[in-house]
Amino acid sequence: MRLDLSIPALRARYLDGSLTPRQLVAQLHAQMLAEDAALERHIWIRRLTLEEMQAYASALDGRDPATLPLYGIPFAIKDNIDLGGIPTTAACPDYAYTPEVSATVVQRLIAAGAIPVGKTNLDQFATGLVGVRSPYGACKNSLHPDYISGGSSAGSAVSVALGLASFSLGTDTAGSGRVPAMLNNLVGLKPSVGRIPATGVVPACRTLDVVSVFALTAGDAATVLAAAQGQDPLDVYSRNLPPHGHNFGAASSFRFGVPREADLEFHGNPEGPAQFAQAVAHLVALGGTPVEVDLRPFRAVATLLYEGPWVAERYQAIRAFIEATPEALHPVTRAITEKGIQISAPDTFAALYKLKELQQQTLPVWNDIDCLVTPTASTAYTIAAVQADPIRLNSNLGHYTNFVNLLDLAAVAVPTGFMTEAMNHMPWGVTLVAPAGQDLPLLSLAARLHTRTVPTVGATSHAPHLQPAAAPDTAAFPSGLVRVAVCG
Amino acid sequence: MRLDLSIPALRARYLDGSLTPRQLVAQLHAQMLAEDAALERHIWIRRLTLEEMQAYASALDGRDPATLPLYGIPFAIKDNIDLGGIPTTAACPDYAYTPEVSATVVQRLIAAGAIPVGKTNLDQFATGLVGVRSPYGACKNSLHPDYISGGSSAGSAVSVALGLASFSLGTDTAGSGRVPAMLNNLVGLKPSVGRIPATGVVPACRTLDVVSVFALTAGDAATVLAAAQGQDPLDVYSRNLPPHGHNFGAASSFRFGVPREADLEFHGNPEGPAQFAQAVAHLVALGGTPVEVDLRPFRAVATLLYEGPWVAERYQAIRAFIEATPEALHPVTRAITEKGIQISAPDTFAALYKLKELQQQTLPVWNDIDCLVTPTASTAYTIAAVQADPIRLNSNLGHYTNFVNLLDLAAVAVPTGFMTEAMNHMPWGVTLVAPAGQDLPLLSLAARLHTRTVPTVGATSHAPHLQPAAAPDTAAFPSGLVRVAVCG
Repeated sequence: MRLDLSIPALRARYLDGSLTPRQLVAQLHAQMLAEDAALERHIWIRRLTLEEMQAYASALDGRDPATLPLYGIPFAIKDNIDLGGIPTTAACPDYAYTPEVSATVVQRLIAAGAIPVGKTNLDQFATGLVGVRSPYGACKNSLHPDYISGGSSAGSAVSVALGLASFSLGTDTAGSGRVPAMLNNLVGLKPSVGRIPATGVVPACRTLDVVSVFALTAGDAATVLAAAQGQDPLDVYSRNLPPHGHNFGAASSFRFGVPREADLEFHGNPEGPAQFAQAVAHLVALGGTPVEVDLRPFRAVATLLYEGPWVAERYQAIRAFIEATPEALHPVTRAITEKGIQISAPDTFAALYKLKELQQQTLPVWNDIDCLVTPTASTAYTIAAVQADPIRLNSNLGHYTNFVNLLDLAAVAVPTGFMTEAMNHMPWGVTLVAPAGQDLPLLSLAARLHTRTVPTVGATSHAPHLQPAAAPDTAAFPSGLVRVAVCG
Repeated sequence: MRLDLSIPALRARYLDGSLTPRQLVAQLHAQMLAEDAALERHIWIRRLTLEEMQAYASALDGRDPATLPLYGIPFAIKDNIDLGGIPTTAACPDYAYTPEVSATVVQRLIAAGAIPVGKTNLDQFATGLVGVRSPYGACKNSLHPDYISGGSSAGSAVSVALGLASFSLGTDTAGSGRVPAMLNNLVGLKPSVGRIPATGVVPACRTLDVVSVFALTAGDAATVLAAAQGQDPLDVYSRNLPPHGHNFGAASSFRFGVPREADLEFHGNPEGPAQFAQAVAHLVALGGTPVEVDLRPFRAVATLLYEGPWVAERYQAIRAFIEATPEALHPVTRAITEKGIQISAPDTFAALYKLKELQQQTLPVWNDIDCLVTPTASTAYTIAAVQADPIRLNSNLGHYTNFVNLLDLAAVAVPTGFMTEAMNHMPWGVTLVAPAGQDLPLLSLAARLHTRTVPTVGATSHAPHLQPAAAPDTAAFPSGLVRVAVCG
């Protein structure tokens, strides 16, 4: 029986003295070796050695577990996020560099007591939602190795689902922190843009990128967010977001948006409609009133992301590298990224105007609902299927995720069930979405929903450790009203 | 002796019955004919006929002057802003179209009682700060016909300065509402981006354009702003900005930023330093404390505007036209605009990142000051000089204006004096700058400064009618603190 790595479970053991970080690291390392022997899932690009992990564990010697919110909590890091002294590859070996200092978010987590255990595999340069676009191997799903892990934060999701880390860091530009959460039966927090600084993260689209969190429960994600968030002067896109939003934890009722029937798309997954209906029924049972939402302007934004100029940000992010050594890239990644240089500045501004128009069209929706609920992804694909049709199936997976960052929204993916034998019992889930800054309210509702749905977390046999997620430290606001304080 | 067209002066006569809008229009029309005969200043692209003006005047028959804030107030319209039924040319005859409806701002002003008198000459497609880039002739300065009017809102400034309209509408992307104000001894209000909707305005740079106001006094500009402002669903870049900022009218003291000595540039104007020092002395006498500001990040933003991708917005704005008939453009305008298509999307995003960095660098400045004060323009050029060196001198004129819209700032240009015989007694002035939304506080300080400076308005012999400008309808805030309410 493996350890329950949920944060409250580990914390209780550290506080009662039945476990030390050194002991945890030793046990975890042995599990990792056993895991490698059992299955080649291509989770890690660089797992830390026992000695490297123990160095972080021993730094906690003499510290009081009660004073560090993440004391001895093991976490995995997507390999486009810097960990000092360990190479960052972004899943491109020729691109690798070894940073002297860790990313700001990693520094903050370590300062809060967390222990890094390794750098995880990803779709190269975080371009993809599948987890197969990596020279380090296609990352295999934690519940069924024929299936994709989802991406781009592939190994980050699988490592947590397999019980090799309590939580992990991903990045999410178009869905990379949500699709793998669903496919591995995890909570995926896609924070508001800028809430967690991106200093020390290899950019994909700098204006849209966020650092995301995979966790066993919404409560764990809230604990990590509290340690990770806050403006960093080194990242000009980072920002402080005052707490606000509907207090789903305390309020007796709420209104949630549901896409119109015509907007629901499951890409041939016969079980999608029933799964989504079941999730909606759970939310109704929790006091929610469904409100039909016209998803067309949201979907138009998603189309804009794929057809618009933002791919040029991916080009700009690795410009010197791709211009010098284009053959060093994964062929799919290269084909996508090289489109960026063919787009003109006038076309770029035209797309920015179009985005602004669509943003304005979506704003009134938030007067009628406290959050939007969609499937996280329409279906689950096998690795073989994606390898045979790499662009189209990838695009299908982003159907409900692509619009979120362009519209400056926060999102939490929540597991809500497992499909049947016909779909190999793969997990399924929904995503709760609200305007930027409402991360904590969404986590609060996610925690309530999670209590009603799946009995186990990730690919483990552990029940979710369902402490209530932190409520926003503010009174509940009327729907749609957002308070912002700006200096300048 | 010409009429004093300031709003309170006209309003008093309408209220006491000594003047009617029909009488005003008749007198104004006669003056315009006399003006044409005396000097060919190339102010108008299309002056309204007496009959056209009288139609607007007669629409006020039976209305109570007390109920309409702009009852019978004549105004001129830059010819890139639509007036229903009259061609809009943007100073490019082949581009001309005749709109059925007026621009939103024009509709609002007419609804408030204002009477349009004509469409004014401009630098073609609002590209320029000089007023000479027009096939309708180089617009001549109101005080000395050898000098440029400034641009691009050339005729709008000159018409008000000559007493042919009470106020006028310009547009201002990089300084077009401020440079002509200084050169014609007027107040130039460059509102916060989006405060006045741009629906029905030919775009230059859609993300930066604002509709601006030339007025005889800051109080008049505030009256016009009150009627013109407010979000328009048809312009997605328009927005409501709640009142806030330092209450310069009521507060006994304030802090104003002054560029470091090294940042002051007068482009060879020997009288600039003394003129600026005098303006600073006036502000000190009003209770202001000067605070030295490092203008370098602001200047870096200005450079970015000139060298960056925003010219591509100008290309996109007239894309079908310039691609079909490039020879229809003024050669200087064409050369500038065609650069836009050569810029790539990756370069565009790189410039957006750079702008974001520079924006962040400038933000702390606003903790130390309640407004920034700079020269409006470094110097005054003759038409001959600009025609001989059209790009460089144009660029010089934007030294203190180019950064303002990119940094989302509001600005008011105020006359502060006349230069000596050596500079042909041309007028001089400063611009007050503060973060978006602080338009009214800036107008309030502008009104106080104007009382201390020039004895006459525009090119007329009338004294400024110095009623106090409307104070912001809110308590004074501590410096640098801005309150924003956002829905969504």
